[in-house]
Amino acid sequence: MAEQPDDRSYHMTPDELRARGREALDWVARYQERIETFPVRSRAKPGEIYDALPTSPPPQGEPFAQVLEDLERIILPGITHWQSPSFFGYFPANASGPAILGELLCAGLGVQGMLWATSPSCTELETRVLDWLVEMLGLPEAFCSKQRGGGVIQDSASSATLRALLAARERATGSATNRTGIDRQLTAYGSVETHSSLEKAVKIAGLGSDNLRRVEPDAHHAMSPDALERAIVTDRAAGATPCFVCATVGTTSSGAIDPVPAIGAVCQRHGLWLHVDAAMAGTAALCAELRWIHAGLELADSYCFNPHKWMFTNFDCDCFYVAERRALTDALTILPEYLKNAASASGAVFDYRDWQIPLGRRFRALKLWLVIRHYGVEGLATHVRRHVRLAQALAAEIAADARFELATQPPLNLVCFRHKDGDDATSRIMETLNASGELFLTHTRLDDKLTLRLSIGGTWTEARHVERAWRAIQALG
Amino acid sequence: MAEQPDDRSYHMTPDELRARGREALDWVARYQERIETFPVRSRAKPGEIYDALPTSPPPQGEPFAQVLEDLERIILPGITHWQSPSFFGYFPANASGPAILGELLCAGLGVQGMLWATSPSCTELETRVLDWLVEMLGLPEAFCSKQRGGGVIQDSASSATLRALLAARERATGSATNRTGIDRQLTAYGSVETHSSLEKAVKIAGLGSDNLRRVEPDAHHAMSPDALERAIVTDRAAGATPCFVCATVGTTSSGAIDPVPAIGAVCQRHGLWLHVDAAMAGTAALCAELRWIHAGLELADSYCFNPHKWMFTNFDCDCFYVAERRALTDALTILPEYLKNAASASGAVFDYRDWQIPLGRRFRALKLWLVIRHYGVEGLATHVRRHVRLAQALAAEIAADARFELATQPPLNLVCFRHKDGDDATSRIMETLNASGELFLTHTRLDDKLTLRLSIGGTWTEARHVERAWRAIQALG
Repeated sequence: MAEQPDDRSYHMTPDELRARGREALDWVARYQERIETFPVRSRAKPGEIYDALPTSPPPQGEPFAQVLEDLERIILPGITHWQSPSFFGYFPANASGPAILGELLCAGLGVQGMLWATSPSCTELETRVLDWLVEMLGLPEAFCSKQRGGGVIQDSASSATLRALLAARERATGSATNRTGIDRQLTAYGSVETHSSLEKAVKIAGLGSDNLRRVEPDAHHAMSPDALERAIVTDRAAGATPCFVCATVGTTSSGAIDPVPAIGAVCQRHGLWLHVDAAMAGTAALCAELRWIHAGLELADSYCFNPHKWMFTNFDCDCFYVAERRALTDALTILPEYLKNAASASGAVFDYRDWQIPLGRRFRALKLWLVIRHYGVEGLATHVRRHVRLAQALAAEIAADARFELATQPPLNLVCFRHKDGDDATSRIMETLNASGELFLTHTRLDDKLTLRLSIGGTWTEARHVERAWRAIQALG
Repeated sequence: MAEQPDDRSYHMTPDELRARGREALDWVARYQERIETFPVRSRAKPGEIYDALPTSPPPQGEPFAQVLEDLERIILPGITHWQSPSFFGYFPANASGPAILGELLCAGLGVQGMLWATSPSCTELETRVLDWLVEMLGLPEAFCSKQRGGGVIQDSASSATLRALLAARERATGSATNRTGIDRQLTAYGSVETHSSLEKAVKIAGLGSDNLRRVEPDAHHAMSPDALERAIVTDRAAGATPCFVCATVGTTSSGAIDPVPAIGAVCQRHGLWLHVDAAMAGTAALCAELRWIHAGLELADSYCFNPHKWMFTNFDCDCFYVAERRALTDALTILPEYLKNAASASGAVFDYRDWQIPLGRRFRALKLWLVIRHYGVEGLATHVRRHVRLAQALAAEIAADARFELATQPPLNLVCFRHKDGDDATSRIMETLNASGELFLTHTRLDDKLTLRLSIGGTWTEARHVERAWRAIQALG
């Protein structure tokens, strides 16, 4: 087994890691310092970045300095700058120093958290931090690990929705589906504004998109509980098995908030699983005065929100809660011989692999822990409150400008508006703004009209950025 | 919109990021330097870490130094050290300096890669690096993006298997299942040694575990093509629709390599989707003399291997390839209004969200790029070759010791063996070794006998660590 004379190591030593790491760290800090100098939306053409990269991998190793140079020269022009303070598109993905360092520590430790036994801290820090968040957001006690529920980090709200749907599918069929496959018509319910991941989940889980009911919204783009109940009753009368409702607190399109208390009552009456998707908006509940968004949550079987959107925690970090963890783990527990261990057998621990689709898992709780400890609850709430205030102020400006109209009164930090001259005018404004590189925003359709979405939640976004955006919009009005 | 007098920022400034970042970086480097001083398997008791953490989140922010102190004092004792050179359990998860820095840069850029348009570099670097790997591993040309196939990074091989199964399900049903739900008996095939994620995928996708056929293995724990064909013929005669075969190159239990050429021929004859799971072993194909493991891959519809296991790239990084990307994207494309954009509409770009379960995605290609550029193909192959050599040398020692027996001749870097006195003796050895903290290994059952698995692939694992492990095993023999 002796080493051979040519046993050269190609690894980066700890001292090299220190030196190269400082260069990488400095690059990231300089990136933050320069962030306002880049066009927010990348101007790369399809294929441009791919073509600029060598067609073959390097046979021998290359110096780190060259990689950083290529990062600057080739990769950076192909970046749309989600961390720019003038990025108002899609949804925020607000990174922060502590989260970045949490990712660094996570990578450095390099542990697998699939089982409690594979690194107890990876599971237990996650459980603790998710319990903290129950308190921080005023979530129902049932979601706490000390009760019968619990929280777990998923990669995304899409995966949380799928995970919830699978638990609902098994509950509705007495766990038969996992064994025998789908043998009846199972129906699921969302609104027309529910995130597209619900349709994806319904396809993946084998229900079929024809069995997804898109309940008509009310005047505020929220789900109508009456229409929901009618759909459930109709389906059941036709012989189907209604099993799952996905309500949304803060829809992607418009930030609409479905009436969870009334929807929850419908679900209880008819025995359906209620999942509440608060991916973007949930973070707002850090502010006591905004905690009303979570009304009715005690009726939910599961819930998720994404610290990786608005809580200064790098993607990926979706916090997914269930009121009855058994309903979750019963659905997907598989225990091959090579994963058996005394701790799992004792039943005294959580094995988070049973709470998710993949087997392996990173130590993502670290970054969440670092974020909460760096900001404190107060710091997080302060910044979130500020984003909401900026959005409300912008909405007031828009409402006061005769050329524009609000598509809806923004409940939180997403402002939806359009030019009164119609789709062409609105579209032209968006294209001109995004091509300018000064800011970036995206669109949706509401009431069959093209509508601009200006989402305020960037780490570095301040009043001056929103003001500048509004001046640019006005100039094109 | 003006800032208010109390507009204090809680964010870590770029300069603070530099300073705190150096502390975090130094902690990681010191962790590497100290790695051999820790007991490999954590000695934490269930609940110990959770109980050591405060019951409530901090109302105000705390100094970073205190977090690092708690990392050392509370978290570290609950870590099972996957990066220890004496970690021989489960499978390697070999981190490396360039991968760690890739994670840092990825976190610093903080971009979303769900669509090409959301950051063209995130998609195009991934496409390029996965094309490089086609060359590096000698994969079929069809898997290259320039052909009709292509590669994409998934979080895990579990997700790759599920993704492949969904494409197979749709191909077998003329894309009807996505719309109408499962309305017939669909059957899938693996061996008794196929990874547990296949059973999980079959449940998730709504086929039901009763419709997963676990084909009997041959004498080497590999799938028997004849038995597979018999199962397919029997199922079809009974009215079922066979749709999916998962072959494994390097099973988790024993490293067995299913005969892909013969299995592929069966799949072609009967029109089944063939997925080849080389999660752990695929990396070996970096070495020309080991490239035989990929024989028959030109018959596969999809393939995956995990750089996050054996290729010095931090979890998560599974490389998933398909021969026909349309078969993949047709199955799960959903395009809500708010994601529509000119580049996607042109068809000239890849939108990787259609290739995966979640919507959001990190810039994981960065770390893979850094790893390949740091090591070069030669450096990677050198270390992998060395791991295989160490495993083969250990296997020879075991074979020569009258008290032990090899459960199987290791094809690559996983050595499976047991004490000839039977399960109790073998179990006692494992428990004593793992409790000692000197090394860590795990078990499986082969030929209905408890069998120890010693998996060699750690970044820092050298001959001396394997020698010491073998001496410790002998001392308990």
